[in-house]
Amino acid sequence: MIRVCIYGGSGYTGMELTRLLLNHPDAGVVSITSRRFAGVPVAEVYPVLMGQTDLVYTNDPPEELVKNCDLVFLALPHGASMELAPVFLNAGKKVIDLSADFRIRDLAVYEAWYRKHTAPGLIPEAVYGLPELYREEIRGARLLANPGCYPTSVILGLAPALNSGLIDPSSVIADSKSGATGAGREPLISSLYCEVSGAFKAYKVGGHRHTPEIEQELGRLAKTGMTISFTPHLLPLKRGILSTMYAKLERDVSSAEAVSLYRDFYQNEPFVRICGAGQFPNISSVAGSNFCDIGVTVDKRTNRLIVVSVIDNLIKGASGQAIQNMNIMYGLPEAAGLPRVALYP
Amino acid sequence: MIRVCIYGGSGYTGMELTRLLLNHPDAGVVSITSRRFAGVPVAEVYPVLMGQTDLVYTNDPPEELVKNCDLVFLALPHGASMELAPVFLNAGKKVIDLSADFRIRDLAVYEAWYRKHTAPGLIPEAVYGLPELYREEIRGARLLANPGCYPTSVILGLAPALNSGLIDPSSVIADSKSGATGAGREPLISSLYCEVSGAFKAYKVGGHRHTPEIEQELGRLAKTGMTISFTPHLLPLKRGILSTMYAKLERDVSSAEAVSLYRDFYQNEPFVRICGAGQFPNISSVAGSNFCDIGVTVDKRTNRLIVVSVIDNLIKGASGQAIQNMNIMYGLPEAAGLPRVALYP
Amino acid sequence: MIRVCIYGGSGYTGMELTRLLLNHPDAGVVSITSRRFAGVPVAEVYPVLMGQTDLVYTNDPPEELVKNCDLVFLALPHGASMELAPVFLNAGKKVIDLSADFRIRDLAVYEAWYRKHTAPGLIPEAVYGLPELYREEIRGARLLANPGCYPTSVILGLAPALNSGLIDPSSVIADSKSGATGAGREPLISSLYCEVSGAFKAYKVGGHRHTPEIEQELGRLAKTGMTISFTPHLLPLKRGILSTMYAKLERDVSSAEAVSLYRDFYQNEPFVRICGAGQFPNISSVAGSNFCDIGVTVDKRTNRLIVVSVIDNLIKGASGQAIQNMNIMYGLPEAAGLPRVALYP
Amino acid sequence: MIRVCIYGGSGYTGMELTRLLLNHPDAGVVSITSRRFAGVPVAEVYPVLMGQTDLVYTNDPPEELVKNCDLVFLALPHGASMELAPVFLNAGKKVIDLSADFRIRDLAVYEAWYRKHTAPGLIPEAVYGLPELYREEIRGARLLANPGCYPTSVILGLAPALNSGLIDPSSVIADSKSGATGAGREPLISSLYCEVSGAFKAYKVGGHRHTPEIEQELGRLAKTGMTISFTPHLLPLKRGILSTMYAKLERDVSSAEAVSLYRDFYQNEPFVRICGAGQFPNISSVAGSNFCDIGVTVDKRTNRLIVVSVIDNLIKGASGQAIQNMNIMYGLPEAAGLPRVALYP
Repeated sequence: MIRVCIYGGSGYTGMELTRLLLNHPDAGVVSITSRRFAGVPVAEVYPVLMGQTDLVYTNDPPEELVKNCDLVFLALPHGASMELAPVFLNAGKKVIDLSADFRIRDLAVYEAWYRKHTAPGLIPEAVYGLPELYREEIRGARLLANPGCYPTSVILGLAPALNSGLIDPSSVIADSKSGATGAGREPLISSLYCEVSGAFKAYKVGGHRHTPEIEQELGRLAKTGMTISFTPHLLPLKRGILSTMYAKLERDVSSAEAVSLYRDFYQNEPFVRICGAGQFPNISSVAGSNFCDIGVTVDKRTNRLIVVSVIDNLIKGASGQAIQNMNIMYGLPEAAGLPRVALYP
Repeated sequence: MIRVCIYGGSGYTGMELTRLLLNHPDAGVVSITSRRFAGVPVAEVYPVLMGQTDLVYTNDPPEELVKNCDLVFLALPHGASMELAPVFLNAGKKVIDLSADFRIRDLAVYEAWYRKHTAPGLIPEAVYGLPELYREEIRGARLLANPGCYPTSVILGLAPALNSGLIDPSSVIADSKSGATGAGREPLISSLYCEVSGAFKAYKVGGHRHTPEIEQELGRLAKTGMTISFTPHLLPLKRGILSTMYAKLERDVSSAEAVSLYRDFYQNEPFVRICGAGQFPNISSVAGSNFCDIGVTVDKRTNRLIVVSVIDNLIKGASGQAIQNMNIMYGLPEAAGLPRVALYP
Repeated sequence: MIRVCIYGGSGYTGMELTRLLLNHPDAGVVSITSRRFAGVPVAEVYPVLMGQTDLVYTNDPPEELVKNCDLVFLALPHGASMELAPVFLNAGKKVIDLSADFRIRDLAVYEAWYRKHTAPGLIPEAVYGLPELYREEIRGARLLANPGCYPTSVILGLAPALNSGLIDPSSVIADSKSGATGAGREPLISSLYCEVSGAFKAYKVGGHRHTPEIEQELGRLAKTGMTISFTPHLLPLKRGILSTMYAKLERDVSSAEAVSLYRDFYQNEPFVRICGAGQFPNISSVAGSNFCDIGVTVDKRTNRLIVVSVIDNLIKGASGQAIQNMNIMYGLPEAAGLPRVALYP
Repeated sequence: MIRVCIYGGSGYTGMELTRLLLNHPDAGVVSITSRRFAGVPVAEVYPVLMGQTDLVYTNDPPEELVKNCDLVFLALPHGASMELAPVFLNAGKKVIDLSADFRIRDLAVYEAWYRKHTAPGLIPEAVYGLPELYREEIRGARLLANPGCYPTSVILGLAPALNSGLIDPSSVIADSKSGATGAGREPLISSLYCEVSGAFKAYKVGGHRHTPEIEQELGRLAKTGMTISFTPHLLPLKRGILSTMYAKLERDVSSAEAVSLYRDFYQNEPFVRICGAGQFPNISSVAGSNFCDIGVTVDKRTNRLIVVSVIDNLIKGASGQAIQNMNIMYGLPEAAGLPRVALYP
């Protein structure tokens, strides 16, 4: 039984880790931290867990927590993980970081988009935790950088096309739409029900911090530096990201051929599904599951490839993917504890 | 492995049975019928199931379907089940009927609220499938009448109080609010997104057909005939029923004592949770799970007991309870295949 | 032109006053205060007003504001209005207070449910601003106590029945459901989109502070002291309150007679509509308008009158009613500036 | 007083025309047709209109209706308008057609995307009713082709940039998202609350019939043939379209210069608002009003112009724009009867 510590567990990502690990056959949560709710039972903050767990939020120092766990999930804002990861690594524990702190390989890029890095020495050994691209590296990882939600949807959506040279890397546009859980549980006016319901907007146009993460991974697939247009939007729903992607075709293919290329690329993947030609995925088909569903088509009129991908941002886009990575790191069945059927309708 | 036939499987109730049985360790769906979608793969009508099942909707006659199953779930409109149940029972199969056809013990009452009954001879042996009240009878049932969604929420909410004589049976009011899945998947104007979102209304005030079912079971608990006010409302959300119930107290108790009485009554129940004094449940804490959560308080000012109960109408209010009943009928662990943690948020 | 000051104008109630007064032919906003947004243009906080107003939130002291206005709307939390009202009244201005500070006539009751009152001397002259009951008194009011949202829906729903002795005053239950704007624009976790969407709950069961206000006015209609059960719930929608009310009948009437009684009572009211027998109102029919729609039926089985009323909590339940009162106080056409057709769908 | 006939009045577009015309100072509805609801009062089908209108849906033949009206709004499916428009035109009446039948100038293009045209002789005289581009032509129009909802949002969003040669016409991508009223009031499974709530999908990718309409008007602005990528999506909200548009810049400009260019282009427009640099519009700021709000930015990293526009699809995208056109055609104040402040929140 893997003894798990969830560091920063009172937000939606931490809650989702807790919820999913309750159903995991080979891992269990032994501690879960929260500054705001220290001393309060988890099931009091989240009544959905009434009767399911006796855990109480703790504010114990990391030096204490590290003693009783094998693995820590860091579910913290950017900037905090880089301070904590060394504590756990130095004690010989494994770390799965859900922040951006170890995702960007180029220190200058990280510091340009985020802030000064205080543990740059750890960046080289961090493994980017997208199983579909890095499964072998993940097996041996000590420090795993769990991908961002938007990057997961965009990278999975474009990997087959870029990897095979099907599209022009300089022409990529990703228009993404996310549910409100992506903004977390902070009490902000912009996250209020009355501000989000019946509303829809773009935000951080041309400047969202997931951009360099996406460009890094797409560029690696394309074997060239890449600059993309990435526009996030806020959807009036709770869970899910849909990314619509556009790129110029480099060669003449049919939609059926594009679908085949995608199916081949992901043929052994337990959590990627490719829609049939002419079919496109719906957020409601994956919300509550660890799946990424992808639809792809060739628009002959404009000579563009159009790809639509959907994930549950809290599961495949965060906590579910973190558990998938844990499963791989520990040699467990990759799908252990992960939901395969969305809650529909 | 229990071989299950789902008769009338293209609606939300049938879909939910399919979804839940995919995760059941000891039962599997062998056939699923639909007149409208005969010949169409289930995963095409419900893309959420892509890659999870190869089942194709069939329109085979019941005489054919009966040959390859052990148990049939009848997920049909009222009136259709009474025609089909005999076919399966006569072939020695078990029947779990999700319609109202076998819930009402008094034929005259059934016919007054519904229609002429064509299989009245089966009514006496039908068992009302509320495990919290009829677990022993369910074990030996051949024909199980699965409770209605509203009745489940109201009966579980009032059973401890009526059973112990805490409240005046003549004073009961149940004000219930249901999500839109309760109206099914029929394409009706009144079920359109643009009619339900941002809207809220009462309907069938004083005349909903779940009334006699509720009165029958409450009356049995109170050991007297009962007539209640039951008002259903339509909520702008997908899953969940919340019932707020009011009744005059027959004796002086505190809220804490009322909570204790409820906890004692349900102490061994795997799917009922009682909130602490002063706490009341939220639909979002049970949507996606088989739980019924109940809050109870004593209003000294008005000498009334106020009870609030919540369920997921598709799970504890229909398909989940049907599977719970199947588990009991087959001597399986009662919680097998049933979700214990709601999808939250 | 009536020069209006909105005191506490950055919340939803203040915003709604601003929005409605933009369309008013005989009144205009001259100042609008906000501590949080002092110095910020109103149209920046509320982009919906872009190009419609040049107003900037001010934090000027009331002594300053009073100089340039004829009327002040106090859109403040309970407790703050009692401090400010005297400043404006002493300067000879009219005051419409949207808080509870001057609604409760019995000082002891106010102080038991709210807090110590610092301007008790003003209570006797305050007029309760429900035009359907107090139109004459409103005409001459200097200090108007604008009714609460829940009380408006419940009092209008029961006034005809209590006034005519149709129902037993000791048997009244009001089960009310409100949209999320009722909680205001404070950034609270419980008001977040992810907490409200797909959720539904009762709150403050047996203890909501609108209870004494409702009881005061219903009791006056019934000419007896009244104690009622009032249970508020939080709906996953933005605007609207629906109250379902139950009471024992004192005499034998048909539903058609009850409808007639209601139509007679409200026959000259510009903002109350009575549904036909067997018809019940929907929040979506009034959201965006100043209407109160009411459906009423007699349940012969239980000998109860059941009434359902709906309003837009921000309009008839707050800012619209405040403007209706202003119109009456100034001898303007009562419907001036008030929307008569809801935004539907 | 303009006597208006609404032909095909029971859908959301017809309802919205009715609702808006109730507040119009110089026009009034004299007849409103519906095959399904012939003989039923409008206020019965739409209780929101209770007490506001005595109109009853009629199925009278057009030859009858034409006698008593000055102007007809055709709110019909594509294909039906071409049959009816001649009847009204031949009788000397004006026609505002809300379908696509007279929007496409090139008959072959119309017939390739839609169907055989039965009144091709009328196409040359039809005026495309986008006031911001065709105000002069609209003044004299007999037959007005009211623009589609998506086209309104995309054309207004790109007109200033294309007209000034700022962007490369061959590089345009429009990623549009529409609320559910766009699908109308037909009872379809795909329009059910339970299918739309919590869901989000792209549809008709690469093949939506608004594409040629957009290309026709953008091409006219760019003075070259244009082929664009246009992808519609279905949002879980009722009213509103947001279009995100991308195009390669032809020359080096700053975001502030782009904003100025847009402000200049629309400086005298009563219903277009341009956000400040770095600001982007929200559907909630226009839903319920006739405004089109536009945000524009220059993304230096990718050398692209990014434009975001929002409208209420039922108002500026359909019925409101139709009334704006009517006002122009009749020499009335252009904003008469049109809502300027959205219903927010």
